[in-house]
Amino acid sequence: MSYDILITDTTLLPLAAHGTATIDRGFLAIRDGRIAALGPMAELSVLPQAGTTIDGRNTLTMPGLVNTHCHAAMTLFRGLADDLDLMTWLTQHIFPAEARFVNPEMVYWCSKLAAAEMIRAGITCVGDSYFHENAAAEAFRDAGLRAVAAQGLIDFPAPGVPDPADNIAAVARFLDRWQGREPRITPAVFCHSPYTCGPATIKAGKALARERGVPFFIHLAESIDEANRLIAPQAETPTRHLQALGILDADTICVHCIWLDEEDREILAASGSRVAACPGSNMKLASGVTPLADLDRRGVTVGLGTDGCASNNTLDLFAEMDLAAKLQKVHAADPTSLPAPRLLDMATTSGARVLGLADEIGRLAPGARADCILIDLAQPGLTPFYSPDLLVYAASGRDVRSVIIDGRLVLRDRALLAFDEAEAMARVNRLATAVGSGGR
Amino acid sequence: MSYDILITDTTLLPLAAHGTATIDRGFLAIRDGRIAALGPMAELSVLPQAGTTIDGRNTLTMPGLVNTHCHAAMTLFRGLADDLDLMTWLTQHIFPAEARFVNPEMVYWCSKLAAAEMIRAGITCVGDSYFHENAAAEAFRDAGLRAVAAQGLIDFPAPGVPDPADNIAAVARFLDRWQGREPRITPAVFCHSPYTCGPATIKAGKALARERGVPFFIHLAESIDEANRLIAPQAETPTRHLQALGILDADTICVHCIWLDEEDREILAASGSRVAACPGSNMKLASGVTPLADLDRRGVTVGLGTDGCASNNTLDLFAEMDLAAKLQKVHAADPTSLPAPRLLDMATTSGARVLGLADEIGRLAPGARADCILIDLAQPGLTPFYSPDLLVYAASGRDVRSVIIDGRLVLRDRALLAFDEAEAMARVNRLATAVGSGGR
Repeated sequence: MSYDILITDTTLLPLAAHGTATIDRGFLAIRDGRIAALGPMAELSVLPQAGTTIDGRNTLTMPGLVNTHCHAAMTLFRGLADDLDLMTWLTQHIFPAEARFVNPEMVYWCSKLAAAEMIRAGITCVGDSYFHENAAAEAFRDAGLRAVAAQGLIDFPAPGVPDPADNIAAVARFLDRWQGREPRITPAVFCHSPYTCGPATIKAGKALARERGVPFFIHLAESIDEANRLIAPQAETPTRHLQALGILDADTICVHCIWLDEEDREILAASGSRVAACPGSNMKLASGVTPLADLDRRGVTVGLGTDGCASNNTLDLFAEMDLAAKLQKVHAADPTSLPAPRLLDMATTSGARVLGLADEIGRLAPGARADCILIDLAQPGLTPFYSPDLLVYAASGRDVRSVIIDGRLVLRDRALLAFDEAEAMARVNRLATAVGSGGR
Repeated sequence: MSYDILITDTTLLPLAAHGTATIDRGFLAIRDGRIAALGPMAELSVLPQAGTTIDGRNTLTMPGLVNTHCHAAMTLFRGLADDLDLMTWLTQHIFPAEARFVNPEMVYWCSKLAAAEMIRAGITCVGDSYFHENAAAEAFRDAGLRAVAAQGLIDFPAPGVPDPADNIAAVARFLDRWQGREPRITPAVFCHSPYTCGPATIKAGKALARERGVPFFIHLAESIDEANRLIAPQAETPTRHLQALGILDADTICVHCIWLDEEDREILAASGSRVAACPGSNMKLASGVTPLADLDRRGVTVGLGTDGCASNNTLDLFAEMDLAAKLQKVHAADPTSLPAPRLLDMATTSGARVLGLADEIGRLAPGARADCILIDLAQPGLTPFYSPDLLVYAASGRDVRSVIIDGRLVLRDRALLAFDEAEAMARVNRLATAVGSGGR
């Protein structure tokens, strides 16, 4: 019996049905891209043969984190315009910069830089939404990351889609290019929002997603005044507008979901729609607070997202877990709100469910795809370690020591093996010099 | 002309009066514990001699961060009891654990572990408040950290002070032991709070602090119901209670300051009292939101604090800057509230002023004590780097590469030089095994 990778003497945190139970001195064995076996070291009578054996002492091994919402290419605009009013930020900084600088080369290199940042932070799967998404999917493929990559749909001229009349066809071509081609890349549809897409576009985009059996992302209820900005409103609130358009189902991922009334929450729960919450971005842009604890109580499947780097400005899901928990508590004036184990679930198992990948990833179990990360526990800031709750309240993406995606070791002892990250940094710095005030 | 340490080719962020202006290719020279010179490399006709020369390429050098409020020894209780109601947390977990486990040996090792964590995160000076503070001060001294170390004062039996009648005398003995003895250690008085100390104790503690010319710390207005729990209230609110007791002045550091009405805020501003804000702890315990932007606007000198590890659970002032900014924005529904440069000031220059050390630290300037840190900029998560605002919204304490305190290199290329951190971790893990459910 021989494996591709064997991790020994690690603390295993399988998650999913196991909650935050750990196996303290455990092993995990990987073969052909999948988890073949795991359990206590004591169960091994002899140490199995493996192509690569990783000494897991002083580490915790858990499922890779699932970032359910990102605009990876926006690393180029990281910190370009902070501390601004939303409309000033969008109309005077982000939209003009996107119009000038977004092209396939930019999307490729900036998405690859994002992939390096995410892999280093223990993110093994991303739900990404942007334009020129073909280049983003190529970057994720080349970077060794798993991705649900969604091509944008908007009723305005967009990067790569100058004529909005072509937007559905452009998404269809993107799906043609990627469906069933690369096991780690799932193509999808990203309908920007109900205030930038009219009913016809939203319905056509969802019809295409249904026809192809792929996920459908849409920004929803991010701003308090979104109801006033809907294009051809079919109902009183953005959520009921989407409900009236018939697009809410278990393959629709509603991003943000801040401004929801009681009826909206019931609709999301009843429809089975997934929610991607981005607390860091929502705090920084002062958008508001997603009612995460309440949605969770209603049984809505919730994942966490970093959003893009222009509004966050970091791609660290450990930080998002911490922000999500702390924000819920202070907002509800209740320290028991949204306890740490719920966040660990949202960042892994539930996140996988949000992206339609629950059968494959989001847990450590025999048969699952081998997406897992090793956290370095031998450091002052994670000592003592009474329980995995500490991963929410004290760990950082920088504590990730090694990362395996689809059975391939892509980060080992903090060295990125999958590709040349220095090249990605140099390319993005060169682009940033053109963008303006910065670049090194 | 020879220096002890010379940093070359670094991006300098001097702060203080310079705001967030940088010197892009700069040098910084240190002699006899102080900054001797700094400026653009171009000003150096020849490279000066130095005992240690640090190649600063791809780094940013800034003043060390000032953590204005901590209970360092509480690393032992890090993550011991999360997601609990405040009174359950205090009375069923923290107080019983403190009664059993707090002794000089525990305080020494757990404070030393905290020192390792803080130095690694770029904190070069801490305002620490606990009991057995003598052991904490010894730990900070041995760790190479700068500290304002305050011995606790409370009207209940406390670790090391079983008889509250002895509490003032115990603080006086602590001040005797440390005043003027160690240049990096400033002793101080920590009066726990107006709900655990009666007027006589508060006044006597402040009188002692005034007599010795040392800082006086007190928790203030942390909980919404604190007014109802005051011992012998002299006025309607905790702030006016302290004002009536005559203890508010520029050497009093009020910690938390969440529940302040208009009159309270005016009192704090007029008295010149300093404020130590701890957003991470306040969010996790759901205590509320310190009106930081408003206090800042009124000219109150504000610093940031991590609080102790039992309520946070991490000692990372980069995380506190991010939390403070984001929490103000989402709470005020205003993304322009408390912009990044204000946070950088609070974590350095203003923090130094809070601790009474503004003449010595908190900025890079000739003559200042040489407390400075080098941030590793050559990483995906800090690329591109348009401005130092990114330090607030994207950097982590884990991005600190090297640390100099009082002219001594204590962390170099992420290796802790000042002491054996593995020993501190092992000691604390051993203590944690006794504490209960955990330890490795």
